[in-house]
Amino acid sequence: MTSDKPISFARGAPSLDIVDSEGLRTSAQRALTEDPAGAFSYGTSGGYGPLREWIAERHGVDTDRVMVTNGSMQAAAFLFDALVDDGTEVVIERPTYDRTLLSLRQRGARLHAIAVDADGLDVDALATELSDGASPSLAHVIPNFHNPAGSTLSADRRTRLLELAGEHEFTIFEDDPYTELRFEGERLETMVSREPERVVYASSFSKTVCPGIRVGYLVGDPELMDGVRKRATNTYISPSMVAQAIVNDFCRSGAIDSSIATVREALRERARTLAEALEEQLPQARFTPPQGGYFLWVDLPEGSDVAAMFDAAAERGVQFVKGTDFMLDGGESSFRLAFSGVTPDEIEAGVGRLADAARSAGIGD
Amino acid sequence: MTSDKPISFARGAPSLDIVDSEGLRTSAQRALTEDPAGAFSYGTSGGYGPLREWIAERHGVDTDRVMVTNGSMQAAAFLFDALVDDGTEVVIERPTYDRTLLSLRQRGARLHAIAVDADGLDVDALATELSDGASPSLAHVIPNFHNPAGSTLSADRRTRLLELAGEHEFTIFEDDPYTELRFEGERLETMVSREPERVVYASSFSKTVCPGIRVGYLVGDPELMDGVRKRATNTYISPSMVAQAIVNDFCRSGAIDSSIATVREALRERARTLAEALEEQLPQARFTPPQGGYFLWVDLPEGSDVAAMFDAAAERGVQFVKGTDFMLDGGESSFRLAFSGVTPDEIEAGVGRLADAARSAGIGD
Repeated sequence: MTSDKPISFARGAPSLDIVDSEGLRTSAQRALTEDPAGAFSYGTSGGYGPLREWIAERHGVDTDRVMVTNGSMQAAAFLFDALVDDGTEVVIERPTYDRTLLSLRQRGARLHAIAVDADGLDVDALATELSDGASPSLAHVIPNFHNPAGSTLSADRRTRLLELAGEHEFTIFEDDPYTELRFEGERLETMVSREPERVVYASSFSKTVCPGIRVGYLVGDPELMDGVRKRATNTYISPSMVAQAIVNDFCRSGAIDSSIATVREALRERARTLAEALEEQLPQARFTPPQGGYFLWVDLPEGSDVAAMFDAAAERGVQFVKGTDFMLDGGESSFRLAFSGVTPDEIEAGVGRLADAARSAGIGD
Repeated sequence: MTSDKPISFARGAPSLDIVDSEGLRTSAQRALTEDPAGAFSYGTSGGYGPLREWIAERHGVDTDRVMVTNGSMQAAAFLFDALVDDGTEVVIERPTYDRTLLSLRQRGARLHAIAVDADGLDVDALATELSDGASPSLAHVIPNFHNPAGSTLSADRRTRLLELAGEHEFTIFEDDPYTELRFEGERLETMVSREPERVVYASSFSKTVCPGIRVGYLVGDPELMDGVRKRATNTYISPSMVAQAIVNDFCRSGAIDSSIATVREALRERARTLAEALEEQLPQARFTPPQGGYFLWVDLPEGSDVAAMFDAAAERGVQFVKGTDFMLDGGESSFRLAFSGVTPDEIEAGVGRLADAARSAGIGD
């Protein structure tokens, strides 16, 4: 690899080598042969029936609680259309996914940004905010391998968050696209499985099948889902039945299990390589090694000029996303590194360039 | 066929026998083999690059004028989000596609409903409305094989409509999903090809490839398209690359041409069978035989109770859509018959039941 080859830690997307292209081709052929009527005709806005049933079984819920969409961001957009108006109070995490932040701001939500630490959302800070008069109707939480923070909401905090939601009568939006990508530690129970009337759950096949297929889903209260489905009908009649029929075959044939195993193994190695390279080459970086997912969040010493480092990194052919992109304010000395799209070799070379960029931006040890 | 088998003239969708299932499987296999990176990765909100280019070439425009979406209804929704606010004046046709009507009403548009006759939108009536002070910023027009009216906007009226749009400075939304389905007469020039700065054009692959793939597109002013693409990015990042890569192969391999030939031939026979059956069995029906598309619009003598006939038809296992569904008011003695999803045998049997339902609803000769 020449030092000129661009290396991107910016985008939360898998490299093609961890997508099961052959399995997807096989599933396409089988799905389009076995159910041409279902794949090629208009469907309903709830999604392709057999996939909807597969998801319902995985979650142990009735099918009318499930709705499958063209990616989970589209699912979130429909949900926000249903629940968020101008002035609606919404709890968000700080930092949080930049697209969610934008989506809520565009709808005029009044945002309460609550800090995320190594154990996820700071529920004590949320409790204080609620005592101080915040009256949210919705709380957006990314419980596993947070984007961008990398951290996971602990079991105790899940319990506490559900209690607060009950006491203060708000809905939790459990936004969980990375859940299958755990490469260390024990899987934690979802909040939706504990309080199905209090939580709307979203997940996606972007990280377990592939992003280009654009299939995600919601699990929630049947009445709320009914309203969301009506919005979907009025927007696009039905999502892509061809895409969802392919995903359905990929799931039911078991290809998804080997795909997940491949992805987890690659991410484990990439995360370890990244952590080691940072410790060695950028010792001023503070971070919590993630237990899964795509992201590692780096805090540099207060006062570090990450904006200048960003420009210096770009000159050296390496990209990341600045911390400020994930917050309403603050984040100037932090940034997000995605390790999903880069090989271990690229990670080592990329961190070398980052360290050089940091020096050039006057960020000392 | 027993007389009990339900027959639906309700849904504007093709029967599976006129979908090229084998061609779609071949295109899926080839597209996912030749460009896995493009099909399986996140794309951009403008759509799958090669398909966008193919559409741009077909329209003889630059690629930045084209945006490919998850179906053309989604395209219309983005466009309305960009152009229609509470109180925006919009010209619609009377009758018009029920979902467009709903979509515009939900956005709070002030609607000017202008009649459609055998030559499409009554441009003289529109001119009068404009003289009387209507000040629309948008006019929604279905120029070919209208849904639900079945008629086609004549060449002279297209010219006049473009003149009115220029004089009164409104944008024409040329909504043209049926254009390839002409089975009689000469193809007419699109309005967007004559006045690209005045017209936004939408079409779809639902009628030429299949509906379940959910691929449609817009052609319009690059600046407007840029704004629409931003909305798409914020809603779903990118449309289904897998679906669009399959459509791209289907188009470029020439499969689409034989598919269109098959569909046209079937529709020609279905439309002729329907017209003959109506003349014979429901002589009180007045209609203009369509030159293409999916729909035939029936007017019954004034005072005919189509709502009662609808119920009587349902009892006899036959469905259609009432005229009232396509208008803000009126349409009580009219209805829409879709011949896209029924075989000639079903059409003959279905019209027999319709005639029986009309008699039972007191609709005489």
